[in-house]
Amino acid sequence: MNKTWRLTSRETADWLRERDNFLILTHTRPDGDTLGSAAGLCSGLRDLDKTAYVLENPETTERYLDYVASYLAPVDFAPDFILAVDTADAAILAKNADIYRDQVDLAIDHHPSYTGYAKYTCLEADRAACGEVVYHVLMELSGAISAETALPLYVALSTDTGCFAYANTTGETLQVAAALLDAGADHRSVNKQLFRTKTKARMALDGELYTSLRYAYGDRVAVAVVTQELLARTGATENDLDDIAAIPGQVEGVSVGITIKEQTDGTCKVSVRTSPGVDANRICQKFGGGGHVMAGGCTVAASPEETVTALLEAVGEALS
Amino acid sequence: MNKTWRLTSRETADWLRERDNFLILTHTRPDGDTLGSAAGLCSGLRDLDKTAYVLENPETTERYLDYVASYLAPVDFAPDFILAVDTADAAILAKNADIYRDQVDLAIDHHPSYTGYAKYTCLEADRAACGEVVYHVLMELSGAISAETALPLYVALSTDTGCFAYANTTGETLQVAAALLDAGADHRSVNKQLFRTKTKARMALDGELYTSLRYAYGDRVAVAVVTQELLARTGATENDLDDIAAIPGQVEGVSVGITIKEQTDGTCKVSVRTSPGVDANRICQKFGGGGHVMAGGCTVAASPEETVTALLEAVGEALS
Repeated sequence: MNKTWRLTSRETADWLRERDNFLILTHTRPDGDTLGSAAGLCSGLRDLDKTAYVLENPETTERYLDYVASYLAPVDFAPDFILAVDTADAAILAKNADIYRDQVDLAIDHHPSYTGYAKYTCLEADRAACGEVVYHVLMELSGAISAETALPLYVALSTDTGCFAYANTTGETLQVAAALLDAGADHRSVNKQLFRTKTKARMALDGELYTSLRYAYGDRVAVAVVTQELLARTGATENDLDDIAAIPGQVEGVSVGITIKEQTDGTCKVSVRTSPGVDANRICQKFGGGGHVMAGGCTVAASPEETVTALLEAVGEALS
Repeated sequence: MNKTWRLTSRETADWLRERDNFLILTHTRPDGDTLGSAAGLCSGLRDLDKTAYVLENPETTERYLDYVASYLAPVDFAPDFILAVDTADAAILAKNADIYRDQVDLAIDHHPSYTGYAKYTCLEADRAACGEVVYHVLMELSGAISAETALPLYVALSTDTGCFAYANTTGETLQVAAALLDAGADHRSVNKQLFRTKTKARMALDGELYTSLRYAYGDRVAVAVVTQELLARTGATENDLDDIAAIPGQVEGVSVGITIKEQTDGTCKVSVRTSPGVDANRICQKFGGGGHVMAGGCTVAASPEETVTALLEAVGEALS
């Protein structure tokens, strides 16, 4: 990690208390955790009569728009302090945050890979979501959370844990979630919208993907292929593809799930999810990509069919 | 409610402490809550050196077998006290529990519709799962929960709340879940098995259902039809149909989701799920069925196609 002042959540609360006029940054391809953490932190600071805004992230999908809408900075806002949430590296800050890249004052994060790009850092790498870290900072700051603040923090926690079903969920995650519900977060509408609703197009797309899954190596490997033709036929857009890489790995007995997304430029984006014992990172490195042991990605300059063949060959080597 | 002695969770703990030799009953078509509550209660009583068994429920699906296997009563077990969990009415006890139907000593339940069939009753109708009630009773009983006891209780809570995504989830549900994780419940394996895994047959079935959903009344109504032919073609069995009634209601904008399951006797089982404003109970009553405002069921003596037509007509009246 680079040279940065590490702060505990209490010290972070003190740091924030002594300052004002904050602009909060999020990461590129924003998910519920970075957007929810930003909105929650912003709301919590406003609850203490601070001036705080979230820098609009141009890649925000419809799914999350409502949760950040009331916190977005006006174009003429001149901040005194720059905060970043859920962002492991300044290089992955949203592209329109470029001018702030080298001047982040405080980063609040939960990634073990956090690089230390900010002057001050509140890092709790054992938390399932950055929203959990923000919650603890805000509790140190004021001892209470308003319903408005609790809502986006609940979005952060629930989306980063697949509504508490992913392996990163801990007893503390559930305790914080309980506290957010008690504070008045409307989890019912969030859960309905984010976890129990699919667009008609996504339903049709999922149907086609489920019926066209290809199995290999005695059903230990499953492959989903999303072509441009399939997207056009089902009417699905980028907004409809949330968590699509999880599909093939959901089949019982499958230890390697591969999702291949044909791009408009003729290449394919590949996502590889694996069960313990198969290294997704190593498979993706063969194609110039990378990632973690259980989730990796790469881009292959080939047609979907050629990509399927190449990936299955590489996976075969990893399995043997 | 019939005449029954109402006990608080503390009084229930006292009642159990003074007795021994328990047989625990579950309800017909057993779900994770009745089985998990039974296994958890049984384990908690055994932790206190009591003799306790769960009466095998012949309808237990593969999904839950592992969680109850080590608690099942031997055929020659002669109990002194009969307990029932998660069972609103003695009439819905598992069929092989017939001989105990009129002699249940203690019922632990969370259904507002509980009829009071047991001599003693511990009813907490505001709990999302019966497992939550059992947890509180066991905490009163011994002040701690073992990892073995926590596991089936986690199954009870998580299945009854759709892994904490359903509207019945409360802050207290999440607090109890947090305590079960802290006690050592292996939530990762439970979540992976119960919420993030589908059999190959279920994946194929879901795919066919998603692509063949029928929409009506400006996409406010969606209908899924599960024919015997579809089951045969995808290889799906009764074990693969868990929560299938939730599918059509998941489509964005749909306020009435209808699932029609063709039976082998030529009739169709119908499930109706509705959003607020449409009464599922009233729709199902037209066909001799019933249920709650947001979820109802009925059986129609007609072909799947005739059933679709009849249901859509009835729903049309309810919508207008």
